[in-house]
Amino acid sequence: MLRLPAQLLLTLTLLAPQVQAARNVILIIGDGMDDVQITIARNYLVGAEGRLVMDELPVRSAAQVLTIDEDGQRVYVADSANTATSIATGVVTSRGRIASSAGVDAPLETILEQAEAAGLRTGLVTTSSVTDATPAAFAAHMSVRTCEDPETIHGVKRYGIVLPHCRQYTRASGGPGSISEQLAASSVEVILGGGSQHFDMPAEGDQRSVRELAEDRGFTVINTAAELEALPVDDNIRTLGLFSPSTMPVRLRGQGDRSAERPRPSWLNEVHPFLGSVRLPEPMSCEPEPDFSGMPGLADMTEAALRRLDNERGFFLMVESASIDKQAHRRKPCGSIGELQQLDEALTVALAFAEKSPDTLILVTADHGHAAQLVPEISLFAKYGAPVYSPGMLVRLRTDEGAIMGVNYATNSFPYEEHTGGQVPLLANQTGAGLVPTMVTQPQIYEIMRDFLFGQSN
Amino acid sequence: MLRLPAQLLLTLTLLAPQVQAARNVILIIGDGMDDVQITIARNYLVGAEGRLVMDELPVRSAAQVLTIDEDGQRVYVADSANTATSIATGVVTSRGRIASSAGVDAPLETILEQAEAAGLRTGLVTTSSVTDATPAAFAAHMSVRTCEDPETIHGVKRYGIVLPHCRQYTRASGGPGSISEQLAASSVEVILGGGSQHFDMPAEGDQRSVRELAEDRGFTVINTAAELEALPVDDNIRTLGLFSPSTMPVRLRGQGDRSAERPRPSWLNEVHPFLGSVRLPEPMSCEPEPDFSGMPGLADMTEAALRRLDNERGFFLMVESASIDKQAHRRKPCGSIGELQQLDEALTVALAFAEKSPDTLILVTADHGHAAQLVPEISLFAKYGAPVYSPGMLVRLRTDEGAIMGVNYATNSFPYEEHTGGQVPLLANQTGAGLVPTMVTQPQIYEIMRDFLFGQSN
Repeated sequence: MLRLPAQLLLTLTLLAPQVQAARNVILIIGDGMDDVQITIARNYLVGAEGRLVMDELPVRSAAQVLTIDEDGQRVYVADSANTATSIATGVVTSRGRIASSAGVDAPLETILEQAEAAGLRTGLVTTSSVTDATPAAFAAHMSVRTCEDPETIHGVKRYGIVLPHCRQYTRASGGPGSISEQLAASSVEVILGGGSQHFDMPAEGDQRSVRELAEDRGFTVINTAAELEALPVDDNIRTLGLFSPSTMPVRLRGQGDRSAERPRPSWLNEVHPFLGSVRLPEPMSCEPEPDFSGMPGLADMTEAALRRLDNERGFFLMVESASIDKQAHRRKPCGSIGELQQLDEALTVALAFAEKSPDTLILVTADHGHAAQLVPEISLFAKYGAPVYSPGMLVRLRTDEGAIMGVNYATNSFPYEEHTGGQVPLLANQTGAGLVPTMVTQPQIYEIMRDFLFGQSN
Repeated sequence: MLRLPAQLLLTLTLLAPQVQAARNVILIIGDGMDDVQITIARNYLVGAEGRLVMDELPVRSAAQVLTIDEDGQRVYVADSANTATSIATGVVTSRGRIASSAGVDAPLETILEQAEAAGLRTGLVTTSSVTDATPAAFAAHMSVRTCEDPETIHGVKRYGIVLPHCRQYTRASGGPGSISEQLAASSVEVILGGGSQHFDMPAEGDQRSVRELAEDRGFTVINTAAELEALPVDDNIRTLGLFSPSTMPVRLRGQGDRSAERPRPSWLNEVHPFLGSVRLPEPMSCEPEPDFSGMPGLADMTEAALRRLDNERGFFLMVESASIDKQAHRRKPCGSIGELQQLDEALTVALAFAEKSPDTLILVTADHGHAAQLVPEISLFAKYGAPVYSPGMLVRLRTDEGAIMGVNYATNSFPYEEHTGGQVPLLANQTGAGLVPTMVTQPQIYEIMRDFLFGQSN
């Protein structure tokens, strides 16, 4: 290889038509954070006329969520695995898949892997298990999202049902191992979130745990907010932060941990829907979730990750607020509100960073819509005298504006609500102006990030 | 008054630092057209990866919907009357109010009235009765939206319930009369839509009908698509087009006029939600609504209005696709889809006009969210074996992509679904670039139109 003297290299660099500064991408994903979730959180946190930090972003777009089944046939409602795959790889796939293709089950290269290969630093920050679908789809490949560790890769049992295995991904089959093993073997500079249970078990065909495997690969494993705060800014330390066994506790919950409840019609109303009366759930406020105490916030984790990733060659960081979705599945609007607030705080941290490093593209988006609906506290039809109420489950939230906000969950009668299929918001900081059209498909989000990081400088 | 010779006037005009060209506003409102309605229509009409005309608009914003009650207390879900009032006047009011203030019941000046006063032409086009809330709030003032005509102003009886009267608005009380009488007495150049029943009755204290009153005021009243098409472009003709007795028939309906239907669980499932099975409604397609035949389309009406309004001094035109909302209330997704398609066609007409007259600001927005949810055709939890289905009513729509789209209605168990309270889309043509921030409140939509029409030229 030709070696040039340092002086000449410097001269060549100075003569280059345009020196490209380090470019950074901070991708912030609110899991299930559709426009309704945003409105519910805004109403509760800052009032209907108030503004969240994300509301003030200067670039607004919307993303078409695309999903197929294993045969390539269109599906209209996504899950977090296939949507994270769309965003991470630019390829539409089927529900449950982690950066792998529908049908043929081939690995799909991710934006994070491309950034690593180009010498950029990379990071994953989430409030879920770091092995959960959204973070996993950026740094691992798997046919089924539940194959998170060396046990579940053989098929996980839930509610008495055995879910699919991913044995073709085991190392015994020549594969890369489970998701936690893939993350432990990855070159990602910083991985922060929950999910220690997936690292505390023996790795496949090994006496040592997956955590020890990660340490062998150069990861410093930490488990507390104090350790996170004390983390030295050292370019040689790679960090795996696991702050809870599974999903991290959320910030807010309903009073006394109440979820949505079923309206209780009187017996006369059971006889005929226009007769009798109904007892609606009592109004309530949100309260702090005790289990959250001592946890690092999403903003804390984002700040720590940015300290570690900031460098001359640029970085890619994915930050996810995961439990906007998980709490909506469980009909807990206070939980979703607190996690949306966490996302907004992480965005504040990202914006402060971009203030100093203007070549930082910040994107804020959701992966799919969710069940929660913002319904009238007093029905449009209350004046007709008949009791009018949700056939699903309802929360009546007292807000600081002195009003009551109705939140309805009624996509099914299972213990977990469904995702929904509407287009989702996509927002960007000023760096995204001209790069983000007013409507994109989710795979185009990948293209925008790729072109920004690796394309021509503008 | 000082009169200047024409020659001097011309010279002064030429010497003015900047001659302001005629400015036009075309405000297109999809009633209840939230992001979910748009996605449902896109999936059905052009496929999940396809693009509606509105998807290609170069300016995207979102609007915070604001509502109060009579005491000024916050309300989180709106109706079409108070939202149209926000957009038309810039003032937040209470549900049911037509350009009148909450509490004190004072008339609020509308953008249409200001345009008239400034010598601009004005028009209202809708697929509802022209006396319905959205068009009414631009050219009439009323405490209760149902006071549409000289009979209902005394209180209307529906389902055995007497709704509020607006007797303080009767001419006997020194008021302006009912909504139809106010429209008949207005100076609006062109009013097109449904609602002839509100004009075919005697005006208050008069032998003649409201329609004759309108004719006295200079309106040519027409009733058919053929008359609309044959309408001469004559600056002296003001047109009141009433193409149906009430809301105009919609374009599409479900096969055999089917609406959403209730899933039918087996008796075992009634015993325990995890047991037994469920019979879902049969999938279906949309079909043409026979009653629509012979009706002018929303695009036809928009085109006719633009022919009449185009002039050297500019105009304000409001175009509403009303039954996206009305069909969603009745759990008819095909109806909503067809009316969203009509809106998209009207937008095409507006864009073609703006192509010739670039100083035309086109805004597309919704007044409030609606009940329809896009739910998984195969539940996320189907693999657990338990029957998982909506507690409300469901439609399974076959699309041209060969897939099935689930649409759920479950805000209540009344014959009419509720509105919902999410933020709504706001889109604009290129003329809106720099004028429309990425997030606005609904009253700010009024301000944007006002500043564009009457403010400093840019």
